[in-house]
Amino acid sequence: MSAQREAAPEPAPSPAARSDREHLLRSWSSYADAPPAVIAGGEGAHFWDEQGRRWLDFSSQLVNLNVGHQHPRLVAAIRAQAETLCTLAPYHANAATSEAARLIADVAPPGLNRVFFTNGGAEAVENAIRMARLHTGRHKVLTAYRSYHGATAGAIAASGDPRRWPSEPGPPGIVRFWGPYAYRSAFHAADAAQECERALAHLADTIAAEGPQGIAAILLETVVGANGVLVPPDGYLQGVRALCDAHGIAMIADEVMVGFGRCGQWFAIDHWGVVPDLITFAKGVNAGYVPLGGVILSEAIAERYAHRAYPGGLTYSGHPLACAAAVACIGIYRDEGLIERARVLGETVIAPELERLRLRHPSVGDVRGLGAFWGLELVRNPVNREPLVPFNASGAEAAPMAEFAAACKQRGLWPFVVANRLHIAPPLVIAEQDLREGLAIVDAALDVADRYCV
Amino acid sequence: MSAQREAAPEPAPSPAARSDREHLLRSWSSYADAPPAVIAGGEGAHFWDEQGRRWLDFSSQLVNLNVGHQHPRLVAAIRAQAETLCTLAPYHANAATSEAARLIADVAPPGLNRVFFTNGGAEAVENAIRMARLHTGRHKVLTAYRSYHGATAGAIAASGDPRRWPSEPGPPGIVRFWGPYAYRSAFHAADAAQECERALAHLADTIAAEGPQGIAAILLETVVGANGVLVPPDGYLQGVRALCDAHGIAMIADEVMVGFGRCGQWFAIDHWGVVPDLITFAKGVNAGYVPLGGVILSEAIAERYAHRAYPGGLTYSGHPLACAAAVACIGIYRDEGLIERARVLGETVIAPELERLRLRHPSVGDVRGLGAFWGLELVRNPVNREPLVPFNASGAEAAPMAEFAAACKQRGLWPFVVANRLHIAPPLVIAEQDLREGLAIVDAALDVADRYCV
Ligand SMILES: Cc1ncc(COP(=O)(O)O)c(C=O)c1O
Ligand SMILES: Cc1ncc(COP(=O)(O)O)c(C=O)c1O
Repeated sequence: MSAQREAAPEPAPSPAARSDREHLLRSWSSYADAPPAVIAGGEGAHFWDEQGRRWLDFSSQLVNLNVGHQHPRLVAAIRAQAETLCTLAPYHANAATSEAARLIADVAPPGLNRVFFTNGGAEAVENAIRMARLHTGRHKVLTAYRSYHGATAGAIAASGDPRRWPSEPGPPGIVRFWGPYAYRSAFHAADAAQECERALAHLADTIAAEGPQGIAAILLETVVGANGVLVPPDGYLQGVRALCDAHGIAMIADEVMVGFGRCGQWFAIDHWGVVPDLITFAKGVNAGYVPLGGVILSEAIAERYAHRAYPGGLTYSGHPLACAAAVACIGIYRDEGLIERARVLGETVIAPELERLRLRHPSVGDVRGLGAFWGLELVRNPVNREPLVPFNASGAEAAPMAEFAAACKQRGLWPFVVANRLHIAPPLVIAEQDLREGLAIVDAALDVADRYCV
Repeated sequence: MSAQREAAPEPAPSPAARSDREHLLRSWSSYADAPPAVIAGGEGAHFWDEQGRRWLDFSSQLVNLNVGHQHPRLVAAIRAQAETLCTLAPYHANAATSEAARLIADVAPPGLNRVFFTNGGAEAVENAIRMARLHTGRHKVLTAYRSYHGATAGAIAASGDPRRWPSEPGPPGIVRFWGPYAYRSAFHAADAAQECERALAHLADTIAAEGPQGIAAILLETVVGANGVLVPPDGYLQGVRALCDAHGIAMIADEVMVGFGRCGQWFAIDHWGVVPDLITFAKGVNAGYVPLGGVILSEAIAERYAHRAYPGGLTYSGHPLACAAAVACIGIYRDEGLIERARVLGETVIAPELERLRLRHPSVGDVRGLGAFWGLELVRNPVNREPLVPFNASGAEAAPMAEFAAACKQRGLWPFVVANRLHIAPPLVIAEQDLREGLAIVDAALDVADRYCV
């Protein structure tokens, strides 16, 4: 009798949930706290869990799923390559890898013609740094405080965000500078033009103080991703290019998150017509269907390896299955006009809708973005811009953002919440109707954040 | 007329060969010298190029292809997972990843129950080092001179072989020691027992001189792979374990190359019944059909992350397609008895045949191995043991080994030649008849090496 009055017991965890909890340590997570959703399938911009709960994906998983879940052409390409040849040592050539390299060189800025493949973004950054050092014969690398470049020793040291702290001390030779960020200017700038000018002056000062003859590279995210969807003001990247040219420094554009269409161009840097010396990529290259990343090299940097071995490598460099997925994915971007679609969705739907949210919700301090990549910065006070949660908050301090995220999920939207921000990065195939519904859910969920506003 | 007397023109390169040359930078290679073979397909222990030339694979590509090319069950598993769900962010759970983690924990030594997935071996090593440092609160990592652990900043710094030189200076805190190597003893030992004892004394001295309270980990390949197929003498790994226990140092067994059956046990370290604190794996876990690697953690090390986020990660951690391949691959090892088969082939075919070659060829200085993983060390002089090519030779200096490799390839065998050694690591599914034929080709090709003997 009394048993009936007790709360209904939790349903027994599924075998997948149980093994996950008992045997997995996941990326950037603890294992005994909130159990993750067990995802059973997906299609386009939606995915669902074992219980049939469905979400609209506004984060493209980790901003990689540009063509959406289970794109039939991409699945077919993987199945076909699996039938032909799954794997091959990188000392052999094969058609899938060659074709992927050719296509990537084809969409890359002029003069960037050669591709070194890795498994993901961190390894791409590691190799780009090595290439820049060998090319210049110098060691120091300048990177931004607001940046993330991966979690291997070199990539995490090159990252500016707090995730690097537990891995310090890291390798020597990393120097950090402040990039442009008009909403919270490090330079007390009044507008975007002044922010650009002052950020470049700060970078030039840093170069001078560090000694240009010792600087191998400036490594930066073209549009800063995980650290805030920070779109550089017009002129900034041109200015960085000019500083690199003046001092013989290699310019590395980290396009792991924003390359392959996310921002409405093949590479985000194409918006400014700037040609870096090295581009790192991953994620969008094949939408993450098979792990793949890499570096695109200028001919000047590649030349060194015409008759001398490149002193870096990995077992799965140029993996045929991953490269076959890249070939199909680039074909999808082209044939479905997804690069252009990212731009159009951004301009005609996302930007105007977010501007409406900014006006309606006191918690929305700033709205910014490019193409299909946007950020809402949430604040307690739109006047003094106090963030909704403090820098690097966790646990109770971060509760307002956790509540906001929960409100989105409850309503069927999977949000990408970082620090005091909502990042919006839907698959580029998302139906306009779904996109509008997702933005309406954000609108409703923001009421939760507004409650924290003074 | 005169045109007819000229040499026949080279056949035009295929589109794959052309794109490869124009657009690819490969692992540890130059791009304008010897064009690689363009591989069109493979089956079991054989693969073939675009022109239909066929080779027997004695290197399992990069010692990853334990189940051979295009194993039907593994291909079917990849196709099925591709139909279900190709990719997922690591903050979600899914059945393939959970099951892979459960199976890996199941075959791991007792007490190693939790898996952190990466894309490959280097990232596995990077994370194992981070885990050891956080667990111990110490920074130094001891690694062997004769070792290779990958090519990201942390992994290449931890490597002992010359491939690290162009990436130096690397991160601080790496201390190198000499491991056991009876054929070229660093300790002037007379036999294996003495080599073991002296190598342990040297390691104990190094620990004392570095300060045990500052040492986070001893990282070592259970059987040294790329640096020589060095099987530790009985007692060595037990001794390392005892030193780690005595000083609170984490023992990391790098099983990227030798784990998952290569040496005739699930993990090579099982031969000695030693339980390390962390195991790194990749390659054999799914035979490289989809990029995958990872770390297996002891409960003591994992516990730290029960309620605190592990400060490391990557976009493709626990990738469903890669993990589905691991599930199938472990099933194949089990159902086809391949782990046992590696042991049996080694004991009944490879060991006796190589011993015959050693007696027959003056160029064969040493023969050593375990399971289906063997090395022949080639020398100019079997008495003073002068290597057939000098340490870290390239170009003309390395010609004798290049000629030997070419002789194998001409006869239809794809050899794994490193420095002055032939490493023998066929797929574990190789037919005994093929294995014997491959060894007969090695026998014939060794005549080339013998010509350099004094
Ligand atoms: C800009 C940027 N660079 C590098 C990385 C690291 O990529 P990965 O997680 O594949 O190692 C990321 C990951 O989010 C990224 O956003
Ligand atoms: C023992 C060992 N550790 C680590 C690695 C690095 O693995 P990967 O090439 O997948 O980065 C290798 C590669 O051969 C290896 O043999």
